Amino acid sequence: MTISPDHFLNELLGYQKTAALKAAIELDLFSALAAEDGDLGQVSERTGTSERGIRIVCDYLTVQGFLEKENGRHRITPSSQTFLTRASPAYMGGIIDFLASPEMISLWLADPASFVRKGGAEGLANIAPDNPIWVKFARAMVPFVAPIAATISTEIAGWPIQPKRVLDIAAGHGLFGISLAQAIPSLEVTAVDWPAVLTIACENASAAGVAKRYRTISGSAFDVDWGGGYDIVLLTNFLHHFDRATCINLLSRAHRAISTGGRVLAVEMVPNDDRVTPPFPAMFAYMMLGSTPSGDAYTASDLEDMGRQAGFSRILFKTAEPTPETLVWFET
Amino acid sequence: MTISPDHFLNELLGYQKTAALKAAIELDLFSALAAEDGDLGQVSERTGTSERGIRIVCDYLTVQGFLEKENGRHRITPSSQTFLTRASPAYMGGIIDFLASPEMISLWLADPASFVRKGGAEGLANIAPDNPIWVKFARAMVPFVAPIAATISTEIAGWPIQPKRVLDIAAGHGLFGISLAQAIPSLEVTAVDWPAVLTIACENASAAGVAKRYRTISGSAFDVDWGGGYDIVLLTNFLHHFDRATCINLLSRAHRAISTGGRVLAVEMVPNDDRVTPPFPAMFAYMMLGSTPSGDAYTASDLEDMGRQAGFSRILFKTAEPTPETLVWFET
Repeated sequence: MTISPDHFLNELLGYQKTAALKAAIELDLFSALAAEDGDLGQVSERTGTSERGIRIVCDYLTVQGFLEKENGRHRITPSSQTFLTRASPAYMGGIIDFLASPEMISLWLADPASFVRKGGAEGLANIAPDNPIWVKFARAMVPFVAPIAATISTEIAGWPIQPKRVLDIAAGHGLFGISLAQAIPSLEVTAVDWPAVLTIACENASAAGVAKRYRTISGSAFDVDWGGGYDIVLLTNFLHHFDRATCINLLSRAHRAISTGGRVLAVEMVPNDDRVTPPFPAMFAYMMLGSTPSGDAYTASDLEDMGRQAGFSRILFKTAEPTPETLVWFET
Repeated sequence: MTISPDHFLNELLGYQKTAALKAAIELDLFSALAAEDGDLGQVSERTGTSERGIRIVCDYLTVQGFLEKENGRHRITPSSQTFLTRASPAYMGGIIDFLASPEMISLWLADPASFVRKGGAEGLANIAPDNPIWVKFARAMVPFVAPIAATISTEIAGWPIQPKRVLDIAAGHGLFGISLAQAIPSLEVTAVDWPAVLTIACENASAAGVAKRYRTISGSAFDVDWGGGYDIVLLTNFLHHFDRATCINLLSRAHRAISTGGRVLAVEMVPNDDRVTPPFPAMFAYMMLGSTPSGDAYTASDLEDMGRQAGFSRILFKTAEPTPETLVWFET
């Protein structure tokens, strides 16, 4: 292995990569490059930017692997075409509104040593429930979760006995429940979340044509009555925000809320037991360290243990490829 | 090529990498891991941090390639040992004080689309000459430039006729001139920079035992009289802050300040003509876009052209390996 400071310098300047992608997406640069076939003069006109700025940022994005430069012309890569041009159905650029929001950036960069010292951060938990960041979150993360929601609803729609009542805890954008309601015509969803966020979920339910089968319960999942008799309780991207005891408590409540034969489905970032592979689930623990008081990325054995303590007898794992997430089924 | 959003997500979260390295260096985590042989309980005690925070950040730094994890124990890589433990003579951690300072981070992340639109940023130029950021810069960048300064002084000390008078424009930490004065006992250095920064240069000159041969001229290089009759004028990491016309003007002034047979030495990040290789010099243009009104990374043909317009007849390039910089000699 070569001994070199290059990797350190490159990663230390990570914030400049964030900035370049944020700028490119805000300016819709990838769409412009596709439309103008890499003619930077026209790209600069279309995006309302200086030729100098566009030239330098396109060279930088080439070094970073988002563009390719041949004979002086910048072309977008297939992955950039798929995920970063607005006309693409898989467009993901909108996640900058949450993942690269000033709120998130400040959580990490204001004093990063402090959350290592304390073992957690006040994080987003100290932001009021009606803060616009939660609306940003609900809107911005849709492209990331849509493929997982589709995988889940296809699977469940194929069951011999289809579920009728689904509870979606911390529904956010509502996509998991809405996708199920679209796949199963008789299914009713009850979504729990803060009022401002439920507005987004209801908008999405209307747009999906399932508003009549979409009920909401406003408030914190920790405070409101969940009701009972559900065939499925969804805990999607929720457990990782909390410590082990809180997760067991949530799973126990979910256990009490299901009907006989009902199940709980968690969607989680699940690292291997070594906790350093695969990369995204492994890095996710750090994302929770910087943005929650005591969240974590739980391994399969962590989740099995929590599930058993909450009264479940079978805990099944299924990767949600190509996404880095795992479906975790808790059965009685 | 696989079509995947992973690279986008990973680079978009670049600011979290900056944060992890900043935290690790502030906590002197790499030294602690070396001293405690990866025992995280003792590392957490030594660094005054929570075990949970240390565990998660060490797993993250493993995913990022700064540590290796085997049998549950984190060990530092040879590069981390060399550049990130404080006892190492090549320790480079201090550069976080400039490269990951709140001032720099804010330049990039406050509104990155704006500098692409405008083709430049007010940047550090709008920070007053006596701002502490310049002192941070002068102190923090020493480990980065020290190997280049050593290479240069070894080369010049081997010349058949040794230079006697050197002018160091925008001397900063002063390392280039000081290193020459150490290598050549009769050499006298005149350093130009803002007063607060010259304090650092003078400290460094004293520590190096060359204070008696170290003169200073306080003020902006654009305002003060440079004097004349120098054997060498140093323009190290300076030209890239300015547009082409300003560079020609600076080189012309340097030309007038040298004696017959004198030379000008610039140290620059010089990308290839394609402007996207090698990675560091290519990315450097973007660093100038975000932090200066009209700076750039100039190619060899750019620099040759500027040199000729300033009256030089020979312009010679020499890489300063293993650093990403290039020595550019301007000769009459």
